[in-house]
Amino acid sequence: MEIIEEESLPIAMHKEWRGKIETAVRAPLENSYDLALAYTPGVAEPCIEIKADERKSFELTRRWNTVAVVTNGTAVLGLGDIGPAAGLPVMEGKAALFKAFGGVDAVPICINSKDPKTVIETVALLESNFGGINLEDIAAPACFEIESELKKRLSIPVMHDDQHGTATVVLAALKNALKLANKKIGRVSIVINGCGAAGSAIAKLLIKAGAKKILMCDRIGILTEAGTEEGTAKRELALITNTKNVKGKLQNALKKADVFIGVSAANVVKAEDVAAMNDKPIIFAMANPIPEILPEVAQKAGAFIMGTGRSDYPNQINNVLAFPGIFRGALDAEAEDITDDMLVAAADAIAGLVGDDELSPEKIVPDAFDPRVAETVAKAVRAVAEKSGIARKKAD
Amino acid sequence: MEIIEEESLPIAMHKEWRGKIETAVRAPLENSYDLALAYTPGVAEPCIEIKADERKSFELTRRWNTVAVVTNGTAVLGLGDIGPAAGLPVMEGKAALFKAFGGVDAVPICINSKDPKTVIETVALLESNFGGINLEDIAAPACFEIESELKKRLSIPVMHDDQHGTATVVLAALKNALKLANKKIGRVSIVINGCGAAGSAIAKLLIKAGAKKILMCDRIGILTEAGTEEGTAKRELALITNTKNVKGKLQNALKKADVFIGVSAANVVKAEDVAAMNDKPIIFAMANPIPEILPEVAQKAGAFIMGTGRSDYPNQINNVLAFPGIFRGALDAEAEDITDDMLVAAADAIAGLVGDDELSPEKIVPDAFDPRVAETVAKAVRAVAEKSGIARKKAD
Repeated sequence: MEIIEEESLPIAMHKEWRGKIETAVRAPLENSYDLALAYTPGVAEPCIEIKADERKSFELTRRWNTVAVVTNGTAVLGLGDIGPAAGLPVMEGKAALFKAFGGVDAVPICINSKDPKTVIETVALLESNFGGINLEDIAAPACFEIESELKKRLSIPVMHDDQHGTATVVLAALKNALKLANKKIGRVSIVINGCGAAGSAIAKLLIKAGAKKILMCDRIGILTEAGTEEGTAKRELALITNTKNVKGKLQNALKKADVFIGVSAANVVKAEDVAAMNDKPIIFAMANPIPEILPEVAQKAGAFIMGTGRSDYPNQINNVLAFPGIFRGALDAEAEDITDDMLVAAADAIAGLVGDDELSPEKIVPDAFDPRVAETVAKAVRAVAEKSGIARKKAD
Repeated sequence: MEIIEEESLPIAMHKEWRGKIETAVRAPLENSYDLALAYTPGVAEPCIEIKADERKSFELTRRWNTVAVVTNGTAVLGLGDIGPAAGLPVMEGKAALFKAFGGVDAVPICINSKDPKTVIETVALLESNFGGINLEDIAAPACFEIESELKKRLSIPVMHDDQHGTATVVLAALKNALKLANKKIGRVSIVINGCGAAGSAIAKLLIKAGAKKILMCDRIGILTEAGTEEGTAKRELALITNTKNVKGKLQNALKKADVFIGVSAANVVKAEDVAAMNDKPIIFAMANPIPEILPEVAQKAGAFIMGTGRSDYPNQINNVLAFPGIFRGALDAEAEDITDDMLVAAADAIAGLVGDDELSPEKIVPDAFDPRVAETVAKAVRAVAEKSGIARKKAD
């Protein structure tokens, strides 16, 4: 619970808030005239326009700015499969962050099904309400099928934040860390511990950004072709990363590695593992709430740069740096999709917000509350959407 | 367009509003400490409590106050089957009214399916997000199956407003009209023109409230057992209303009738039909935007009381008098259902707001903007929920 002094405080505050979001009214509704414009009979006019051209729903309703925060509650925080109702506090919180950080209106959509096909079908049936879909806290491997199928079927942007939001911020942090270490992404040896939603997306985005040497580890050890089942997400990961068929445990992988990225579990990395890494080791230990190795331990063992998911240590690698700006940019462009190129641009934008004068091993990412972040990310994302021809709306 | 001077104005205003509702943030999100309470890691605590007891979602999230405004766009206003995207402006408007009039947070849920089973399944999968379900603008007869199945399956209140909201306000208006005409509901002869969602619900609620003599008419004429197909909603209506097997056209039904209730089409009632009615005829001509007979024509032909759905004539029989208070009361009670008894209580509450001193043929329902309406309706609805044992939460 780190910075919260009492364990009962979050419950007390949630009871006091009685909800972290609510619906607010934008159209005046003070008299019959207002009602006649916003509701019957006036509302028939926008209905008729949208019936003739569905894109008009982005002009005549809030659709242009509205994102569904979709979960089925199967992988909520570190709590696992707690179901859709128990996932609602997180989705409400996420919706609140969307608005507070990105100006995006977001609506929790908790779906009571573990069947990926049912989740896909449900979201597809709801497409016309939304300008984008943020998938959240859905367990792997179902999350991969759900995301890829929805990206194919829907004409609005879809992103699983646990995958791509995380990957974007990791890439941003890594870019600045490598700058400080004076190393190149194409040359460094990277170990990712955790092969779920986050780990696999991080691997893919780092490859997209030029990484050549990645080993993925799960609880058993380094992912290999032989050690994974055909047709699974892990097999795919083994094939795109471990081309030299390296075998062994996480500890073996870490020997002479330049970068450790943990999206796994508490305390799985020891001081001696850090000591066995290459010169100037970069450690992103993002397990929550207890990281793979505590910063004080890692630094004593020689870590050059240390990042965690926590707000009480420097270098908090936090999705809130990415998702509000990514969706803001995608919505502003009325983009058809969120592509890897947009994510790389977002990572560059985040990394670029730490000026050379302030860049240091203790400051590789901007502060989550830096008001420039979402806007800068949004602009970068929008520019790529326009350039790649998937923006339906051009910037003024 | 009646009171709106220019046909293009609703479009211009909808473009200016860029949405009639939005998401607002209730929890502070100014710094890391706020984030740790409302989001990670603090949010895990409410998740764990809800996992242990789903009812806690009514305490720890906005669920207690949130209603889905659900449509599949098959019967939007008088526009017919225009689809889910084109229905969104109406659902947004409805959501805005829910908040402005009842303090209820409402979320448009437009579902892209005409199959009642798919709509039912989709809403059921989304139950854990909401404290209630308002069905809207779904065509008959699918709306009957969707509502009755969802009422069975869900543990939150479900109401199809086109049916029961309308029926509630009609009953309220009729009670006051009969008081003025000095007639009893159990004695009067009532003709309802229109056998869709609204007409059938009106018939059933009037019967519940004591009406004994109702004839239902559709485009062909008076509903009869012989004239309707077995197993259909119309056959059911014929059986519960036309027990004497009266045959004929609407014009035949209106001869010596005391009350005409139209939820049908423009200009289907003529001056001579009103003249052929019983003494002190009561006419509710609610077709929109052009009523079954214009008030000036009906009054010249002898109408004693005239109501329409329009705000530019006296006695506007408007659902906004009912649904915000009905859901406010059901949510406040954490009711399991919305029952006919709750609707009758709502109608009594609406009718009771017109004091004997102000009750007149030109004033049989309160003004839509009378701030007492929703609160008074909510109290009455909540009291019935408590009395009938379906309130999970008692009033203080």
